[in-house]
Amino acid sequence: MERANIIDQIALKQSFLCVGLDSDLKKIPKFFLDYEDPIFEFNQRIIALTKDYCVAYKPNIAFYEALGTRGWVSLERTLEIIPDTHFSIADAKRGDIGNTSSLYARTFFETYPFHAVTIAPYMGRDSVLPFLEFDKKWVILLGLTSNIGSQDFQFMKTERGQYFYQLVLETSSTWTNHDRMMYVVGATQPESFKLIRQIVPNHFLLVPGVGSQGGDLQAVFKNGSNRDVGLLVNASRSIIYASNEEANFDEAVEEAAFNLQQQMKQLMT
Amino acid sequence: MERANIIDQIALKQSFLCVGLDSDLKKIPKFFLDYEDPIFEFNQRIIALTKDYCVAYKPNIAFYEALGTRGWVSLERTLEIIPDTHFSIADAKRGDIGNTSSLYARTFFETYPFHAVTIAPYMGRDSVLPFLEFDKKWVILLGLTSNIGSQDFQFMKTERGQYFYQLVLETSSTWTNHDRMMYVVGATQPESFKLIRQIVPNHFLLVPGVGSQGGDLQAVFKNGSNRDVGLLVNASRSIIYASNEEANFDEAVEEAAFNLQQQMKQLMT
Repeated sequence: MERANIIDQIALKQSFLCVGLDSDLKKIPKFFLDYEDPIFEFNQRIIALTKDYCVAYKPNIAFYEALGTRGWVSLERTLEIIPDTHFSIADAKRGDIGNTSSLYARTFFETYPFHAVTIAPYMGRDSVLPFLEFDKKWVILLGLTSNIGSQDFQFMKTERGQYFYQLVLETSSTWTNHDRMMYVVGATQPESFKLIRQIVPNHFLLVPGVGSQGGDLQAVFKNGSNRDVGLLVNASRSIIYASNEEANFDEAVEEAAFNLQQQMKQLMT
Repeated sequence: MERANIIDQIALKQSFLCVGLDSDLKKIPKFFLDYEDPIFEFNQRIIALTKDYCVAYKPNIAFYEALGTRGWVSLERTLEIIPDTHFSIADAKRGDIGNTSSLYARTFFETYPFHAVTIAPYMGRDSVLPFLEFDKKWVILLGLTSNIGSQDFQFMKTERGQYFYQLVLETSSTWTNHDRMMYVVGATQPESFKLIRQIVPNHFLLVPGVGSQGGDLQAVFKNGSNRDVGLLVNASRSIIYASNEEANFDEAVEEAAFNLQQQMKQLMT
């Protein structure tokens, strides 16, 4: 998918919402368990209920992998029903030496037709570049994550006085094909967005942490948006687990997505 | 597997060799392609030929994942035939926020019965601790990797003047259950082993990069071993792709493993 397609969709939908498909057999409502492939049925329902309010879907690969081969089948079937208009992100946090990263790239861009994959930066340039060789495919590199553990290393100061995550953004945003790169920046760190926009003014940011993790959408938009919006804000649990009851499941899920889209629309206008 | 079991095996075999199962359909000898599950047949043959000379096997998960569900089936079957005496490592380089890391831990320790999994440190403590909660299971955290890209971030200096990878070792080696942690340290960085042993004198190190990547076994042993040996040195391509010909395949693979074991035996005595 091209950058222009993403921007068009955001304008059309008045939304920069990404719905995270963290679909867990232990958490999806019980009535889905009657189906042969409960995870797929759940995802299918979630997609039907949310597609008008979001521009991207992000299956969290851990949830599929944990189920063994049947999880990968559920994932494959889910990818088939994500509308072509929507940006699809494999939240996989991969990254290895060059020849191995090439294989991970084949996995997520060829074996499974994702548009993007999340990548951990620790191993440096040759662990990321193989993913950037694919036309119309995207790397979403971990910048500043939304979890407590982001304090351990990402906020360590370098000898030049910058935070380590800033160095990651600064260095990686000069790599070949960096125009097919986005960054993960957690919504729980709204005060950091201004600093981040000084380093990467144009790149899209994938922002987890709104919803269950407590991030503030308004602060993220204020400090993090650019002229193309430049944000994909992810919500997972607050949407997909909006209800446990068959009676109001559709209503609750649709409402959760609609509410976020309405907030986004208001921010965009 | 307990630390004592690993140490016993090393003494018994006079070897600290780990064989990396980077089994690639495009690289395994053509005669395996006649089998229904070529990757499994290849791995089975490799294991039979090398098990007397090594103490661990390390499937590189990227190679299995790239094949979709049939890759995971090959992996599952391979795990069933790795002898109980041998330490099994999922080279997966995972790591995510706490609830997701818990799922990855379930994947590699329960869905697939690995003894250990490699983890990337960027997301910090809560991305690693869920893996350390499993009794007799191991985290192998990326310390200093063997690739060129290790220069990009791992060798950046912190404000205290240490390298970033040293900070990772120093911080993580205080975490709860760190006695079930090992570190990845590339053999291509032999001069760094002395420094690393000052920070983590007792932890085992998983050392890739001997063989095709050019690392020096003798230098690694001299600077990196401790009283328990404390090393698992991995070789992948130099062993498993030792021959392309059916006529001498068994001989070439066994000889490659035997030669490394002999070098190790000499270093240990």
